[in-house]
Formats: sequence, C-alpha cells, structure tokens
Amino acid sequence: MVSIARMIVDHHGVLLVTRVSEAQAAAMREAFPEAQVHERAHTVTVERVALPKMDGAVAVVCAGTSDLPVAEEAAVTLEIFGNRVARFFDVGVAGIHRLLAVRDQIEACNAVVVVAGMEGALPSAIAGLVSKPVVAVPTSVGYGASFGGLAALLGMLNSCGSGVTVVNIDNGFGAAYAAATINRQLHAARNGK
Amino acid sequence: MVSIARMIVDHHGVLLVTRVSEAQAAAMREAFPEAQVHERAHTVTVERVALPKMDGAVAVVCAGTSDLPVAEEAAVTLEIFGNRVARFFDVGVAGIHRLLAVRDQIEACNAVVVVAGMEGALPSAIAGLVSKPVVAVPTSVGYGASFGGLAALLGMLNSCGSGVTVVNIDNGFGAAYAAATINRQLHAARNGK
Amino acid sequence: MVSIARMIVDHHGVLLVTRVSEAQAAAMREAFPEAQVHERAHTVTVERVALPKMDGAVAVVCAGTSDLPVAEEAAVTLEIFGNRVARFFDVGVAGIHRLLAVRDQIEACNAVVVVAGMEGALPSAIAGLVSKPVVAVPTSVGYGASFGGLAALLGMLNSCGSGVTVVNIDNGFGAAYAAATINRQLHAARNGK
Amino acid sequence: MVSIARMIVDHHGVLLVTRVSEAQAAAMREAFPEAQVHERAHTVTVERVALPKMDGAVAVVCAGTSDLPVAEEAAVTLEIFGNRVARFFDVGVAGIHRLLAVRDQIEACNAVVVVAGMEGALPSAIAGLVSKPVVAVPTSVGYGASFGGLAALLGMLNSCGSGVTVVNIDNGFGAAYAAATINRQLHAARNGK
Amino acid sequence: MVSIARMIVDHHGVLLVTRVSEAQAAAMREAFPEAQVHERAHTVTVERVALPKMDGAVAVVCAGTSDLPVAEEAAVTLEIFGNRVARFFDVGVAGIHRLLAVRDQIEACNAVVVVAGMEGALPSAIAGLVSKPVVAVPTSVGYGASFGGLAALLGMLNSCGSGVTVVNIDNGFGAAYAAATINRQLHAARNGK
Amino acid sequence: MVSIARMIVDHHGVLLVTRVSEAQAAAMREAFPEAQVHERAHTVTVERVALPKMDGAVAVVCAGTSDLPVAEEAAVTLEIFGNRVARFFDVGVAGIHRLLAVRDQIEACNAVVVVAGMEGALPSAIAGLVSKPVVAVPTSVGYGASFGGLAALLGMLNSCGSGVTVVNIDNGFGAAYAAATINRQLHAARNGK
Amino acid sequence: MVSIARMIVDHHGVLLVTRVSEAQAAAMREAFPEAQVHERAHTVTVERVALPKMDGAVAVVCAGTSDLPVAEEAAVTLEIFGNRVARFFDVGVAGIHRLLAVRDQIEACNAVVVVAGMEGALPSAIAGLVSKPVVAVPTSVGYGASFGGLAALLGMLNSCGSGVTVVNIDNGFGAAYAAATINRQLHAARNGK
Amino acid sequence: MVSIARMIVDHHGVLLVTRVSEAQAAAMREAFPEAQVHERAHTVTVERVALPKMDGAVAVVCAGTSDLPVAEEAAVTLEIFGNRVARFFDVGVAGIHRLLAVRDQIEACNAVVVVAGMEGALPSAIAGLVSKPVVAVPTSVGYGASFGGLAALLGMLNSCGSGVTVVNIDNGFGAAYAAATINRQLHAARNGK
Repeated sequence: MVSIARMIVDHHGVLLVTRVSEAQAAAMREAFPEAQVHERAHTVTVERVALPKMDGAVAVVCAGTSDLPVAEEAAVTLEIFGNRVARFFDVGVAGIHRLLAVRDQIEACNAVVVVAGMEGALPSAIAGLVSKPVVAVPTSVGYGASFGGLAALLGMLNSCGSGVTVVNIDNGFGAAYAAATINRQLHAARNGK
Repeated sequence: MVSIARMIVDHHGVLLVTRVSEAQAAAMREAFPEAQVHERAHTVTVERVALPKMDGAVAVVCAGTSDLPVAEEAAVTLEIFGNRVARFFDVGVAGIHRLLAVRDQIEACNAVVVVAGMEGALPSAIAGLVSKPVVAVPTSVGYGASFGGLAALLGMLNSCGSGVTVVNIDNGFGAAYAAATINRQLHAARNGK
Repeated sequence: MVSIARMIVDHHGVLLVTRVSEAQAAAMREAFPEAQVHERAHTVTVERVALPKMDGAVAVVCAGTSDLPVAEEAAVTLEIFGNRVARFFDVGVAGIHRLLAVRDQIEACNAVVVVAGMEGALPSAIAGLVSKPVVAVPTSVGYGASFGGLAALLGMLNSCGSGVTVVNIDNGFGAAYAAATINRQLHAARNGK
Repeated sequence: MVSIARMIVDHHGVLLVTRVSEAQAAAMREAFPEAQVHERAHTVTVERVALPKMDGAVAVVCAGTSDLPVAEEAAVTLEIFGNRVARFFDVGVAGIHRLLAVRDQIEACNAVVVVAGMEGALPSAIAGLVSKPVVAVPTSVGYGASFGGLAALLGMLNSCGSGVTVVNIDNGFGAAYAAATINRQLHAARNGK
Repeated sequence: MVSIARMIVDHHGVLLVTRVSEAQAAAMREAFPEAQVHERAHTVTVERVALPKMDGAVAVVCAGTSDLPVAEEAAVTLEIFGNRVARFFDVGVAGIHRLLAVRDQIEACNAVVVVAGMEGALPSAIAGLVSKPVVAVPTSVGYGASFGGLAALLGMLNSCGSGVTVVNIDNGFGAAYAAATINRQLHAARNGK
Repeated sequence: MVSIARMIVDHHGVLLVTRVSEAQAAAMREAFPEAQVHERAHTVTVERVALPKMDGAVAVVCAGTSDLPVAEEAAVTLEIFGNRVARFFDVGVAGIHRLLAVRDQIEACNAVVVVAGMEGALPSAIAGLVSKPVVAVPTSVGYGASFGGLAALLGMLNSCGSGVTVVNIDNGFGAAYAAATINRQLHAARNGK
Repeated sequence: MVSIARMIVDHHGVLLVTRVSEAQAAAMREAFPEAQVHERAHTVTVERVALPKMDGAVAVVCAGTSDLPVAEEAAVTLEIFGNRVARFFDVGVAGIHRLLAVRDQIEACNAVVVVAGMEGALPSAIAGLVSKPVVAVPTSVGYGASFGGLAALLGMLNSCGSGVTVVNIDNGFGAAYAAATINRQLHAARNGK
Repeated sequence: MVSIARMIVDHHGVLLVTRVSEAQAAAMREAFPEAQVHERAHTVTVERVALPKMDGAVAVVCAGTSDLPVAEEAAVTLEIFGNRVARFFDVGVAGIHRLLAVRDQIEACNAVVVVAGMEGALPSAIAGLVSKPVVAVPTSVGYGASFGGLAALLGMLNSCGSGVTVVNIDNGFGAAYAAATINRQLHAARNGK
C-alpha cells in the first residue's frame, strides 16, 4: 500500500485512503510524517499540496454512533476534495424534533449526504424538509432482517421523498464524491466559470 | 362462499369477509340483504347481532391513497370487532408536519395500526412520538425494488422505534385483530373484569 | 460503554444493556458494584432505583436451550421495566402435550412473548390456544436453509394463528418492549388511571 | 395431450395426468369415455386395467380448503398406484385438538403425506405425534411474505420434527410417489416377497 | 384521476402524470384540451402556466428502444420542470465508439441521467468519460436472470465509476427530479442568486 | 454437554451426538470410556446397550471427499439405530459409469440416502436407476453461486427423478432418521409384526 | 417490427427474429413471402442470401418437450449462421441409458449446446462424457422452487463437469451464438485461414 | 493433500492445485522440489513431463489488482494445459481508452477469458469489440450490494454483448478449462487433425 501511496503523493500531492486497518494506518503514518489518520473514518489523508477550498458547504447527516464511521468517511472525503462539511450526527427518524431543529442549517448547504442503517428512513424525512440534492448511503449496521444493509438499501431506493439518490451500502466515499461533483459545479458557477 | 357465509351468520350473527372481488361482493349482497360492502376495503360485513362497542379507540394511520385499501381493511375489521376507529389517512414521513399535527389524537388511542408501503418508515416515526403499542402493516404498493412489499417489510422489522411489531404484507386484518386483542383487554380492565 | 452507562444510571437510576460480551460484562461489574450480569441473556442491568412492579405477568415461551439467550433477553428486559415474568422454556410444536399442559398458565398472563427458531411454528400453536396478544421473536438458531433465522421469520409472518405480530430476528428486547407497553396500559387501567 | 395420453393408455392401461385445465379435462373425457375427472385435484385418471390394491393405507393430511387441490392431487396419485388413502383434511396447527383426535388413525397408516401452506408447521406437529415416515408438501397458498410457498418450504426443511422429508412446492404427485414407494415395499414384505 | 388532476392544474397551472395507461391518457385529453400526451413516456403533461426555462441542459442517455419509455419519462419530467434536455438514445456499452462520439456533448451538460437495463453497465462507462453528476436508472427490461431489473440495479450500485448515484428500477421521474434539483441550483448560481 | 449425555446414556443406554467439535469429542471420550468418536462424521456414539440389528441395508451414496462428513453423519446415525449401511462414496454425475457399476447393489437396499453438493444432480440420476425410496441431502460444499448449499437444495427439490424427497442442507442425521423409519417398518413387516 | 426487419433484410439479406408471438409471425409472413416461421422455436427467419454452410456440426441436446422451444431457438439460430445442427431432444439425467447411446454422436460435433430446466443437471453429465465445449442454457420450465429457472441456472453454474459455461435463462440465442463463434473459428482453421 | 498429489504426479507427470493456502504451498514445495508456487494465483503446479505447447494464445483480461488472483488462476491453468497466455491486467470499463488500445491484441487470440468484479461490465464491452469466444468470470471482489459476486454474475448473464458465456463466481479454473477446450480443437484443426 505504501509504495502505491508514495507514487500518488509524489504525483498529486494529495492522497485519500479509505477502509484502512489499524496496522495500515500505522504504516502510512511511518511512511508519511504529514499523514493524518482519521480514526473514526478508518481513513488516512496526506495533503502535501492543499486543494483550494470551495465556498459552499455539504451537509453530512446521520442518526448516531453506529453509522458514524461511514458518515466520517464521507466527511473526510469531502474535505480532502476541498468542500466545507457541516456535520449533523445525532438526527434520526425516531426523534423528529432534533431533525426539525437543524432543518434550516441543512437547507443552507449545497448538497446533503444522509447516512442511515436499520430501516434507512432518514433520507425520506430530510428530502421532505429541504430542497437540496440528497445522496443516501445505507449502512450495514443492524442484525437479523437488516441482511447486511439490504433493508436500508431497499428502503432508500423506495424513498417517498422525491429526488433521493442512493449509493452502495457503506459507500461513504461514493456519496461524498457525488456531492463534491455537485458542489464543485456550483462553486465554478458562482465564481463566473 | 355464500354457503359458508350463511353458516357463520346463522351461528354467530356476525360475518367479516376480506379480499372480496366485485363479483363476490354482489353475490354476498344478494344473499344477505343486510350485508354492508366496504368498497375501498374490499371487505363485506354482516352484523345481524351488533357486537358490544368498547370505550377506547384504535388509531389507523397511513400516508395516502395507495395504502388506503389495506388501511380500510384494518379499520373495518376493528369496527366489526367492536372497536371505535380513529382514521388518519394523510400522514407520511415525507411530510412530517402533518404527522406532528395529529400526534396527540393518536396518543389518545389505545393502540395504533400503521399501514405503509414504499420504504415503510412511518411506524418508526410514530413510535418515536407516541407511547402506545404500534402494529405495522407493510403494503405491496410500489414497483421495482419494492419487491412486492419486501422493502417495507424489512424496513419495519428494522424499525429504530422501540416496540414496533409487524404483520404480513397487506395483512390489514391481522394487524386489526392484534390491536383489537389489546383494546379488548383494556376495556375489560377498565370495566373491572 | 461504561461512560455512557454512568450517565444513564446517574440520570435514570436504571440501566439495561443487551448483547453484552463477557469482557464488557466484567467492565460493567467493575464500574457498577450493584450491576447484575444475566449470563444466559448476555445482558447487564443496574437498578439503583427500583421501578414500581406491575400486577399482571407477561409469559415468555420457548422450545429449549438453543432459543434460551433470546428468551432470557426478553425476560430480563420485561423485569427491568417492572413486569412480572412467567417463563415457559421447554414448550415446542414437536411435543404438543407439554404445550397443552401449560395452556392455562399462559392464558392467565396479559401478553405472550414466543421465541422460536427453526420453522418458527410455536406462535401459531399458542395463538390457537390462548386469547392474549402474542408477540413472536424468530431466532437465528439453525443451519442450512434456516438462512440465519429467515425461515423462522417468514413462518411467523405467515402464521395461521390470528393476531400474531412479529419483531426482528433475535430481537428479544423489542418483543419485550412491545409486551411491556401492553402490560403497562392494562396496569394503569386496572388501577383506575 | 390426447395423442400422448392414448399411447400411454394403450400401452399401460392406466393413465394419470395432473395439473389439468378445465378445457384439457373436457378433451380427455371426450377422448376416453372411461376417464375420471377429479375436479378438486385438477387431475384426470384412466384406469382400463385396475392396478392391484395394497393392504396398508397412506394418510393424506391438510388444514383446509386452500390446500385441498394439492392434497387431492396426492390422494388421487396414491389411489391410481394402488394405495388406499385415509384423508384428514381439517387438521391444522392453530387447532391442535382436532389433530390430537385423529392421531391414532394417522399412526395406523404406513406413511403420511402432509400438505400445508402459510408457515408450513403441520408436518412438525404430526412428526412429533406419530412414528411413520412423513413426506411434507409446501403449497403456494398465501400472500405477501409467503413468497409463493417459500415460507412453507423453508419451514418444512427446518422442521424440528425428526425424519420429515420435503418435496417441491405444490408437488402433491411427488410426495404421493415417494409414499407409494414406501407402501409398495411394505406390501411386498408383508406378502412374503 | 381527472378530479385530482383538475385540482392540481387549477392550483399550480402545471401538471405531470407518469405511468399513464392509454385509457387514462384519453380521459386526460378529454378533460384538459391543452394536455400533451407523451406516448413513448406513458406520461401526460398540462402546462397552463409555462415554467421559466433554465440555461443549462441535462443529458438523458440510453442504449436503445427497450429502455426508451423510462428515458422519455425522465426527459419529459425534466422539461416540465424547466430544464433543456439533450437526448442520446443509441449509446451502449457493447458499441463503445458511438459513446465516444458524443462524449463532449454529454460533458457540456450540467447533469446526466443514464437509463440502462440488462447488466446496467452504461453509467460506469459514462462516469469514466465525463466529470458531471451521473444519476443512473436501472430498467426492468430483460428476462431470466435480469430478475425484473435487479441485475441492472446491483450493477449500478457496484459501479466502478466514481460518483454514480442510483434510483429505483424504472424510476425515470426520480432521476429527473434529482437532476433538476442540481440544474436549478446551478441556474440560480449563474444568475447571481 | 457431558451432563446431558450422561442422563441420556443412563436412561437409554445409547447416545448419538452429531456436529461435535474436537474438544467436545475429547470431553466425551473422557466421560464415557466406551464412547466411539467417528472423526469424519464429526459424531460421537455411546452404545452401552446394543440396539437389535435389522435385516435389510440402507445405501448411503456420495460423490467424493468433500461430501464425506455429511455422508458419514448419515451412516453413523443409521448404524446406531440398528441399520446395516452400504456405503458408495465415489459415485457422481460427471462419472456416470461408476454409478452404473453399483446400480444393482443400491437397488438391493431398502432405502437410499444420497448426499451431494454443487449442483445436487446425483439423486435424480439414482432415482432414474433404482426403485427404492431416495432421500436427498444437499451439502454446503462449494463456493460462489452455490450460496452455502442453496444451489444443491433447489436442484434436488426440482429433481426430474420421481419420488425424491429432500432434507435440510447438511442434515445427514435427518435423512438417516427418515430412511431408518422406512427400514424399521420393513423389518417389522418381514418379521411378521 | 416489420419496418426494422425490412431494413435488415435489405441490408444483410438474412434476418433472425426470436421470441416472436403468433401475431408477429403472421405479420412477418405477410411482409416477407420467403419468411420461414419456426413455430416450436417462436422464431422467424428470412434467408434471401444463403450464408455459406460450415463443415462441422453443433449438437443441441435437451430432455424433452418442455425444453423444446429454447432448444429449437438455439438450433434455428445455429442454422441461420451457417452451422449444421445435430438435434438430441430426448436425453435426460433420469434416463442415463439414452444419453450413453448417443454419446459418440455428440462427441463427433464441434460444440454442444445443452438445454435443461428443473435441476439443470444434464450439462454435468454430458461434460463428463464428451471432450467438446459445452454451453449450458437453463430454462424457466418448472414450478415452485424452480423460481423461474433460478434452480437450473445455479445448478449449471455449480456444475461438477469441468469446462461447462452458462448463458442466461431461456437464452437459446446466446448459447447458439457462442457455439457458432467456436465452430466458425474451427471451420476457418480447417480451411487453412 | 500431498499424498493425493504424489499419486497424480506419478501417474500423469503434471499437477495443478488451485486455492492453495500458504501452509499447503509450503508443504507442496517440500514434497515436490520441482513444484512451482504461483503466489498471486494461490496455485501450485508440478510439470515433470512438459505438456506440448499449442500455437495460438488465449487472452486473460481483468481490470486491476483486486481481480488479479482469479485472473492468475485462469492464466496458470491455461499454461499448464499447454496454452500460451496473453495477459491484459489493467483494462476496465471506467477507462475505455486503455481497452481500445489493446483491442487488436485481444482479437489476435483464439479465446478470451474476462475476469471482473463489481458490476461485471467488462465482458460486454470486450464482446462488442472482438469476434472471439468470450468466457466471463465474475469475482467476489466488492462489498455491500455486490453480495459476494452476485452483482457481477447477474451482470454477466445479462450481458448485452452476444455470445458471452459465464462460469461460477471466482472460478478462474473453469473458465480456463473451457477456453483451453476451444484452443485445443483449433490447434488440432490447424495441424490437420
């Protein structure tokens, strides 16, 4: 891993590695003194050349501790690509009042990544409250009839909220990439490009 | 169907037939002049001997027109078993404010039957707002990855709302039967039995 | 885990942790000298402030040793919420006479939690014998075509016994929570609330 | 169909056709005046040469009207192969007392074909009560999470009753053929062959 | 349908109905003389008040005749929401040269809706060629192991192209809604809002 | 395990434990000096009181080394129940000549247990060659699209050979129990009972 | 259909249309007097310019009437592409002797297309007997646990016969196309190209 | 393993063992000094008697490092059977230009083995570019909705490229065996046999 990483850092000045084990993280830290290990996200970044930061923010929303690693993977991915991230990590369908309390802050972002396991209902609720693009990430959190995230995935694909799009189970990176693509276009448009 | 129905009516004075086709409904109406055909519920009832009505009510909640037949099947079943029914038929996860507006009326009931298709998220939201037993009915409404109600079923089984229990897809009757069992016990307790 | 637990105990005086590993149980016992470790239920409880006990009982029924951990999780959950529990842990469909022998004792309870793996037929048999609400818990016990509890789950959802409701595979907690909700209402009604 | 049927009748003197539509049944009756149409079994038999009848009987058991066509397919198949058939068509898991009432009559048979839809629990209950070979037939009766008989099939494969064997969904013929093979061996043994 | 439609037209001046049968289309045309029936899209629109048109375009891409109804549903939805649509309806993975030929035209759009059945590989190929947000719609076209669009859905969720997001099988409307949300933000940004 | 085992041995004089780990086998051997450990079958037997042996034999057939543990579980189970066992452990569909070579020896048995993984085709081939009851056991041997034995299970349920019955994946014990039930009846009939 | 067909015939002189309904076949016959309707194959061919015929033959094998339409689709496809076809349409795993009788004739072909429903075991048996490439086609024939051909598909993918490759359920065309590609290369090699 | 291996080497002079663990590889190396351990392919070969090499080559194509073990298993299998192998291990659907760059080299081979995980789209793209038989191998690479290779398997079975045939997930050996069968026939034909 380290040798490929070195090639990327030498060439691009920036590196993002997701789904990193503790041993791999240690090896990376040894190889790259400037490496940042994001423990909750199981992710390592190296940012020798700082990417230009964009104006608008992307919201990353999840319901709690069990979905946090995937939500953090999305957040770290967004940040390394130059997006500002607004984290809402305690918002769920079973506690609707907390969601209503942050509605306006989410609406103020340019795109929303919603991470949810179990029945995967959070994206529907959010899409019903805000007008921004919602990218949903099902997580493999759960047991029994969650079938490794299948229940959340099907729930999100059948979302009653219009305009919700979905990525693979636990794919925080993919959702962040999609949201970053949207935000980058907006940034360019706002800066007259 | 009519001959079995006659035996039941003669013996019990009360009859409930669910999943009735239009032709069957017509045949029933001809055989039993007092038969009531509940068109939206695809259900026929005969109530020669009125069952005693109970004090408390059972709430039946769904999000809209497509889940209505199953919700009505539940409501008609509850009524024939002597339960008062409070219908909330325009309440969904994508429009949370309508749900909040009726929260107190649902809480005032003794049990809640929640009917939902698509991602099946409504029971979680309701269980997070009220303290009464919630029986969830997934419906086969939807297309593609709803897989005939499987998505809603899995969503409800993985509900993040504590204490949600689930019946088979489209089984409005079963949910009503379970809610009626709860309500009947309460009625007996309140009347000192 | 211990730090979150301490917050809950300090605030509520009562704590229930399910799905606890042996190491976690040891850590909890060290942190809370009054903690009770329920080994078969993989559950730890702390009851600094005793919850008021209710009059009626909830039956917890299963067929034998392999379903015991989930049945005990349900029983311990019920007890911490103030319910009396009647355990019937040797009752199965393949030995119907043992089931008939305890029928009246189950009927005397206010609600029934039935835990079963393999083909999940026990709830149907019990629902055919008693008139109380039956909450069924499929377990992941089995091999081959049990598919991690899917066979039992589908069996229970298709129960020929009216009024059976179902929770997620191995979710003893959820079934207990639902049964406790029913029992608490009854207790309140019987005490004139 | 008729031309193949004629070849078989001419050659063997006996014919069994299962899964016959009404139109096919009419065509068969026209072609073979001696044809017997078994309406409930959707089966036609021609018995120009009567097969020798065997001593022992095979029990065919099911829970009611919806499983009747498959149970009758099994019964007619058994009869055309020379088996006496004992029909028990009103026996289910949700009404255990009816099952106990016929236990001794089932035990007196040489083999048992049990036909059941929904959760498919009947074979387990019967295998717990009798000592004869039990061949289970799941039926496609049901809706929603019965998934066309899959729930009953999985239930039977996970039967907690020892020695239950299973055939394909709705395959009354196959179960009858297996039971007939057992009965024929016994008949030969009892007659000193 | 017509009465609900009338309410929407009276209130909003604009109406979009998808998944319309021929009979429903005829009824709509009779009720609304100005209704436009989009036959290939199985969609009816009424546009009494023209929505303001936006600058940028959204690309809708599919491989051929069998995916056309879903692609047209997406295109018509986009147009009624004020988006210009660039249709590429003869582009598939098995004929890569046609795809390369239109690459620059797709890149010039603000978002891309890719509709594909069978193995659902087209979004990966396009995401590898263009830098714009790609929303993928699996279709139920196919037979056998396509399992009603499941093969295409899984293919798209596992896309090796970064940033592909997915909607439900045959959900041309949902993909269009998501793409329109992106395009509307861009339009506002470019116009200094 | 040992304490339950001791109760069974004391009461019945005979014990069969399947799916035994190496550690459990060692513990059993220590507790019961007369215990026999069947390593390939992962099974332990104690036979303090020898069960009477029956006249006829049961054939156990499989294709090779990977299915051997399940085939041996069936064979050991049959033997402890007093059946003689004829083992054919090198017979597969891809080498039809070896199967034809032992056809007559299989036909001479009273019942046939056929164990097969992968595509599960062996029972069909054998049922086409012999006239005795065939009980099929799918095994979880294989990888990829064998899905833990599902492919073999479905293959056997769809067997084109008449009269094949099926037990759960890897359930050598269940197939043996069913075959023993058949053989015991025959033995009784042949001995005038 | 006819207009596209005319373009193809005018351009290539040869046309193959599979999965043709009776009405479509009639329309084609009217439009192209020289069209040949292959009824059992649900296929229409037009061969204005005869393709050059190749030396070697391709074997098409199936077990009987129910698999015939797919087998004929493969055979007609092979013929229109210039292959000679050797049909073996009465060969199944449950009747191994018929298969052995034609083994040498199959071996004499350059490739083998094997069509089978139910448990899909025939390709394994043939691959064990001949040394030529075997392309297997599962069919959707069957009921219950055949799940529309899934059982046959999984069986073939897990074939114990080395070198069996598989195409989609009912895809006689695809198997024929693959076999034709093999045969064409051989023809070229034998003719010194 | 070593003892069976010795028998094969003594008898055939050539040995191929796939899916070898590191410990097994070490044991093989000790037993056979001439053994070659192919680490990336998890395969060991012994070639005491060199098989005659054939003229033509077989292409083995995959997209990158994660599919490499299966691709190497195919390549090593092909080589031990006397085929020359052309490896293309950096070719994917998301980078179409690299694929176009090697198109002619692939076309020059006699058969193509394409190994792909994730959405399994590579075989379609290649079949659209070359005229040689394409054997596709899905791999279990991926996570979430790849379901252990099921997504790639379904994608390949639904390939829009004509003539693609498929083997089991991760079955590099099987694909190589099929390709070798094709190449051997061609070699014989070209050498006048």
